[in-house]
Amino acid sequence: MKSHRKELSFNIPARRALVNITRDVQAAIDESGILEGLCLVNAMNITASVFINDDESGLHADYEQWLEGLAPEKPYSRYRHNGYEDNADAHLKRTIMGREVVVAVTGGRLDFGTWEQIFYYEFDGKRQKRVLIKVIGE
Amino acid sequence: MKSHRKELSFNIPARRALVNITRDVQAAIDESGILEGLCLVNAMNITASVFINDDESGLHADYEQWLEGLAPEKPYSRYRHNGYEDNADAHLKRTIMGREVVVAVTGGRLDFGTWEQIFYYEFDGKRQKRVLIKVIGE
Amino acid sequence: MKSHRKELSFNIPARRALVNITRDVQAAIDESGILEGLCLVNAMNITASVFINDDESGLHADYEQWLEGLAPEKPYSRYRHNGYEDNADAHLKRTIMGREVVVAVTGGRLDFGTWEQIFYYEFDGKRQKRVLIKVIGE
Repeated sequence: MKSHRKELSFNIPARRALVNITRDVQAAIDESGILEGLCLVNAMNITASVFINDDESGLHADYEQWLEGLAPEKPYSRYRHNGYEDNADAHLKRTIMGREVVVAVTGGRLDFGTWEQIFYYEFDGKRQKRVLIKVIGE
Repeated sequence: MKSHRKELSFNIPARRALVNITRDVQAAIDESGILEGLCLVNAMNITASVFINDDESGLHADYEQWLEGLAPEKPYSRYRHNGYEDNADAHLKRTIMGREVVVAVTGGRLDFGTWEQIFYYEFDGKRQKRVLIKVIGE
Repeated sequence: MKSHRKELSFNIPARRALVNITRDVQAAIDESGILEGLCLVNAMNITASVFINDDESGLHADYEQWLEGLAPEKPYSRYRHNGYEDNADAHLKRTIMGREVVVAVTGGRLDFGTWEQIFYYEFDGKRQKRVLIKVIGE
């Protein structure tokens, strides 16, 4: 069994933003030399998500509005977590969108449906954040 | 390390429906000959989910009503994604229910608690959809 | 490829509670002798979650209030599942928080960001429950 580990770094200038990382994940699989296996992609920070959906700007705007309805950023005082911080909503939004995806590797490629794309979703930016890619297989 | 890949196909006549796929996943594990490992089961379409919960019709009706409250189908105009499509709610409902499950394989069997069952949840049916099963192990 | 399986047991005296299980998961990885691989940690019961976030009591109180808003426990009659049971809300809350996490093992350690901690979240306690840990790798 082979394994390969890679980190991606982000420093998003806004509080929230979406980044398509599909090519970065495929590049890590290429580097691993693994043809058949599983690939874990997870946010290493607890106020960010990794998820799979469509690369369509209307949908991304819908996510923004929908998550703000489910877990509003303000007033900051609505959350107990916000004593010294203002990012409780980021923890909740990340919970909805998920920490990680596990994807199949087949023939050295991401084994994806037509529209599947992997995204990093930042909910508390303006600082250094990381994503972990771990590939195992043969 | 061995690996095995299998696709399941669905063409659900309704917009939304739940299908218990536990036996199909166990059949794929049987075919793989893998006794110890991990099994990924994921929707290959971005308007459908794979999740684990109880096979109980009351709960499934509760899911329907609950998801409709969290991400209403109509009016279609409430979503930016719905320029040429009407399925933005399907993307959001699938986000709540999840894209994938990862399950342990032990002694050649799904290593499950008493009530765990794997479901495919269609949110935008009346077309061909796919689920991917990837088993790795020995 | 090696694999290792371990169960954790819980009997929480309250209906809902959070338990940090990070050390238990690391202990299972230690027992496995696996240095590089993946580790699945999942609730074996369908009214409990395993998730990763911050070990901060304010945030945990926020989760309680937020989940109660998204999937209220009462009135029990609001859910079709609650014919003979009263735990439909527990199935829905667990859906939001998730069934499982998959974590990378690197150099024999949980490959984690600074604040990542693994929690068991009980939504229907006062009975015996289980968590499964399955590690595969080399």
